[in-house]
Amino acid sequence: MPKIAPISGYPEWLPAQKRVEQKIVAAIARQLELSGFVPLETRSVEPLSVLCSKGDDKEIYVLKRLHAIEGEVEKLGLHFDLTVPFARYVEQFQSELVFPFKRYQIQKVWRGERKQEGRYREFLQCDLDIVAQNQLPLHFDAEMARLLMQIWACVPLRDQTMRLKLSHRKILQGFYQGLGIATDNVAETLRCVDKLAKIGADEVKRLLMAEVGMTQTQAEKALALGSISSESQVFVASVKALGVAHPLLDEGLDELAAVMSMVEAVPGCELVVDLSIARGLDYYTGTVYEGYLVGHEHIGAVCSGGRYDRLVGGDKKALPGVGVSLGLTRLLGYGFDHGLLDLELPPMVHVLVIMTDEEMRAQANQVASVLRQRGIGADVFHQVQNFGKQIRHAEKRGIPYVWFVDQGVPGEGLSGEVKELLSGQQAPAHAKTWSPEGEAFCTE
Amino acid sequence: MPKIAPISGYPEWLPAQKRVEQKIVAAIARQLELSGFVPLETRSVEPLSVLCSKGDDKEIYVLKRLHAIEGEVEKLGLHFDLTVPFARYVEQFQSELVFPFKRYQIQKVWRGERKQEGRYREFLQCDLDIVAQNQLPLHFDAEMARLLMQIWACVPLRDQTMRLKLSHRKILQGFYQGLGIATDNVAETLRCVDKLAKIGADEVKRLLMAEVGMTQTQAEKALALGSISSESQVFVASVKALGVAHPLLDEGLDELAAVMSMVEAVPGCELVVDLSIARGLDYYTGTVYEGYLVGHEHIGAVCSGGRYDRLVGGDKKALPGVGVSLGLTRLLGYGFDHGLLDLELPPMVHVLVIMTDEEMRAQANQVASVLRQRGIGADVFHQVQNFGKQIRHAEKRGIPYVWFVDQGVPGEGLSGEVKELLSGQQAPAHAKTWSPEGEAFCTE
Repeated sequence: MPKIAPISGYPEWLPAQKRVEQKIVAAIARQLELSGFVPLETRSVEPLSVLCSKGDDKEIYVLKRLHAIEGEVEKLGLHFDLTVPFARYVEQFQSELVFPFKRYQIQKVWRGERKQEGRYREFLQCDLDIVAQNQLPLHFDAEMARLLMQIWACVPLRDQTMRLKLSHRKILQGFYQGLGIATDNVAETLRCVDKLAKIGADEVKRLLMAEVGMTQTQAEKALALGSISSESQVFVASVKALGVAHPLLDEGLDELAAVMSMVEAVPGCELVVDLSIARGLDYYTGTVYEGYLVGHEHIGAVCSGGRYDRLVGGDKKALPGVGVSLGLTRLLGYGFDHGLLDLELPPMVHVLVIMTDEEMRAQANQVASVLRQRGIGADVFHQVQNFGKQIRHAEKRGIPYVWFVDQGVPGEGLSGEVKELLSGQQAPAHAKTWSPEGEAFCTE
Repeated sequence: MPKIAPISGYPEWLPAQKRVEQKIVAAIARQLELSGFVPLETRSVEPLSVLCSKGDDKEIYVLKRLHAIEGEVEKLGLHFDLTVPFARYVEQFQSELVFPFKRYQIQKVWRGERKQEGRYREFLQCDLDIVAQNQLPLHFDAEMARLLMQIWACVPLRDQTMRLKLSHRKILQGFYQGLGIATDNVAETLRCVDKLAKIGADEVKRLLMAEVGMTQTQAEKALALGSISSESQVFVASVKALGVAHPLLDEGLDELAAVMSMVEAVPGCELVVDLSIARGLDYYTGTVYEGYLVGHEHIGAVCSGGRYDRLVGGDKKALPGVGVSLGLTRLLGYGFDHGLLDLELPPMVHVLVIMTDEEMRAQANQVASVLRQRGIGADVFHQVQNFGKQIRHAEKRGIPYVWFVDQGVPGEGLSGEVKELLSGQQAPAHAKTWSPEGEAFCTE
């Protein structure tokens, strides 16, 4: 017998949860489209040569035909993020896109991770990027922060705040170089500092000395930089007070100060500069972003991203951009599990049409059909039973009204009686004019 | 260098095409939810034991970790349809669902097919099913036909008609048994008859005689049954005129006649009984459906399905149901390729806010923000250029209006001038009150 069971890392929602996800996705899409982002969907697979080109290939699922012929070589894998396929798509379709190209992409990604709590192997991500063919003005970094806060507002997490932390690669890199760290060691330094939240300052200091070869003073300065955070422009003075100088550092401070001056926090979000944010990935070159759910920081960043100089590698046109990614499945899974998500959606079906005689089904269907044409969700009970049983079915499905088909009046099939189950109130109604309490629908 | 190229069988749309797909999916979802169908999404993978349990396993893609440890056994494959995962889901979550359970599922499926024109390896399907725990009344067969025609109306194929063909397994099976065909040979007979449209009557007749062992008379009668089609109840008399009798045949005729009496064709659809429709799959037991694009029958059925007695196998509760599947990617791919799909959507962005001085950006952002809050798509041009260049950018993106930020009036930043690019008309406007021609938006 086939095994019927959950598979670790592959979450599945119940229909009510799926409706919540669907509503969030639609709200995010709406916000982004109003701001000029076009929807994009890439195929789920990429050639392994594309997936492995950044060296980060340990979690890839390769596709193999079940009845592969002996010696058949697998060439395709499922994408593990939406950045790699986006870069490939832009390169492939460049001549058909208008730049700056603003796209959003809400799609599943797959990672062959080991089993671990909260780790998903299949999950939904929402990515947004803006890429230019030549230069990408700095104000897009501010727009990205604004958009992140705006799509955050589409997630109905009850009374939860997101703290959006901004940092800047040029500040970190310039500071390290100003400290005398060799350019070759900057990437390794960033990787060590990126572990600050996970392993703590002492351990990072040990790593910086042991792995990067910093002196104790250098490591302490690097940690002092990482401890700077502010809600305003104060961070500039705090960094300067550390007494490290480098042209790249100055550039970074100017840029991040400018970005902060262009964007304001919105309700439900805090916007801060936090120079402990380094982002592990090599390709970021400017502003970097990480968003945390306040009070639930242990689940890690719920969104992240940054500015990069080259979307595509090699000798090709660089395509600078800025992009962020919101982990929808992780957020929803955590929200569902901890009762943080508001599951109360307006009813999908407003009325259950009920009857006591199978002969009345055509008439019941007609009532339902007219209601639906007016945008009112309506279902017809599937069999003839006593009213009590039919009403209990409506209650089980969260349908707030039942419609008693009018028995006595031939040719008058669209009138009947409607009962609101919560209040018990019952009144005559006509399918062309009746509307659920408190909601407005067009009248035919 | 990684290869940047299309992969056969994995279609990708341009953003404008993706918007069309998105609009169709939203319209279908809306129709189905108004009729009480809940959305469902299952994980993309199933255990191989589940995928292979119906014996139809030749096209499965197995997942293999790129860095699998030697001897690691692959146990998961990508689903090749939405029926197998739906059956598993219903079995797994049965206690949490309300029956009759009506769900729709719009999701990608994967098949490791050989390269062939029009064959996709990754494609979007839309499935809808109604399953009951005990009996599923016959009127659901009519509802399924109605819904198929209704969701068809959501696909903006220019001037195209769908012919929805209904047939019935009990009619075919009862007729064959009445002809004296052994029960064991009925499945094979159905498979032969199902090839009628592809290989023609002569070849089917040959197969029926050679493979099923029919006599010439039996084979000719079977073909005569397959040639019956009618838009009304006439088919009952036509079948009876062939002089074959069997209780199952009578049952099927009664049922199909009842279904036809309960449903009417809608504009853009033809509804016919066509007894050449057999459907190859074993599990159908009643009404079967196949929909064809009139004039484009060579692409095969665009939707299909039928009634089944058991959603789940083995000793478990049978769960009878009726379901259909619409092949969205195939339909869209064909429609895009042949110019049949209407790509004209309302503009996503209505206004491009433009300016001649970077100092005006904050004000421009404010204008765009107010417009967006009112539901009007607005973008701000990314750099300061002469108006001609900015207007050309708007034209390239299909944005119908540009908004000139008002330079001279401090504190009055929300007023400006709006130019409609098509007519060249320009007029003063205020972000809190202006609306695009012919469209109504709320006023703040």
